Amino acid sequence: MELLEQKILKDGKIFQGNILKVDNFLNHQVDVELIDAMGKDFAEHFADAGITRVITLEVSGISMAYTAAKYLGVPMVFAKKIESLTLSDDVYSSKVVSYTKNKEYNIRVDRRFLLPTDRVLIVDDFLAKGEALGGLIDLCEQAGATIAGVGIAIEKVFQGGGPKYREKGYHIYSQAMIDHFTEDSVVFVER
Amino acid sequence: MELLEQKILKDGKIFQGNILKVDNFLNHQVDVELIDAMGKDFAEHFADAGITRVITLEVSGISMAYTAAKYLGVPMVFAKKIESLTLSDDVYSSKVVSYTKNKEYNIRVDRRFLLPTDRVLIVDDFLAKGEALGGLIDLCEQAGATIAGVGIAIEKVFQGGGPKYREKGYHIYSQAMIDHFTEDSVVFVER
Repeated sequence: MELLEQKILKDGKIFQGNILKVDNFLNHQVDVELIDAMGKDFAEHFADAGITRVITLEVSGISMAYTAAKYLGVPMVFAKKIESLTLSDDVYSSKVVSYTKNKEYNIRVDRRFLLPTDRVLIVDDFLAKGEALGGLIDLCEQAGATIAGVGIAIEKVFQGGGPKYREKGYHIYSQAMIDHFTEDSVVFVER
Repeated sequence: MELLEQKILKDGKIFQGNILKVDNFLNHQVDVELIDAMGKDFAEHFADAGITRVITLEVSGISMAYTAAKYLGVPMVFAKKIESLTLSDDVYSSKVVSYTKNKEYNIRVDRRFLLPTDRVLIVDDFLAKGEALGGLIDLCEQAGATIAGVGIAIEKVFQGGGPKYREKGYHIYSQAMIDHFTEDSVVFVER
């Protein structure tokens, strides 16, 4: 997606350890026009996939999962990773390691919001090693739901998560695919 | 806001300790049409307030803050409460107690995303004792930004946060104002 790639080149910042900071338009401050265009792009890409629900993992995927769901006309669900007294015990649960947050946590979704009849679109902001994606896939499989597609904003292809899950047969669409970082810039996979 | 009040009466669940569960349309699963209408309603209410930025606190306020910001045509920022390696040290920070999560945490916002020239609309899903709101107000004041308004989805008026901050002069607009709970239902403040 040209618009997102251009925004990354213009406003993204690269830090040691292959960390791309997009906090001024995606995951701290949010560029509303960009997020709207991204949601629309996800919805168009998966228009014929019969999606019944969009699922993401709190926090940074929420706004783009919301816009994708809005354009698809289906509910959006965000799996929880923060403890909350208001979450019931009747959940699907999976373990995820976060490398940028340097810890392991449980992700959970209430069983009422993921059904065997669902055709799910998984949406997330980043795909690197595929840890969060693996957890979300696990939740869907526990529910017996069909994973109809995966929409990712930014994939770091060289970190292996995307290739691994494509090989398993998942339909992953990434709006920006990073081949590698140079010292101060980003090189995208040629389309 | 009639639409939200009706949804609460229809789908909200009441638990002991004055806890209203809205997880099937607001803060776990998200009803996209409702959230869109709520964002539009916030934007219309504060249309003449000269808003330059919408700020919320992760997690549950994000989708409605996003839609409000989208309709206002300004950026949305979510203050962070989860530790992250990608957040810089150059932040405004404030302490907040969460009663539903039963802990105290730091909320933080990067100084680049809250400026003395800003006229801020604070948006959040719940207003009870006003803890989260107090933290967000504190962040804005540290930045020297003007708080042009506060948009709340659901205010539990009897818990005192709304009255307290209105008395201090803040313009708080709540879409659903709960006067009290009965055993199995919600009584809204008469408009």
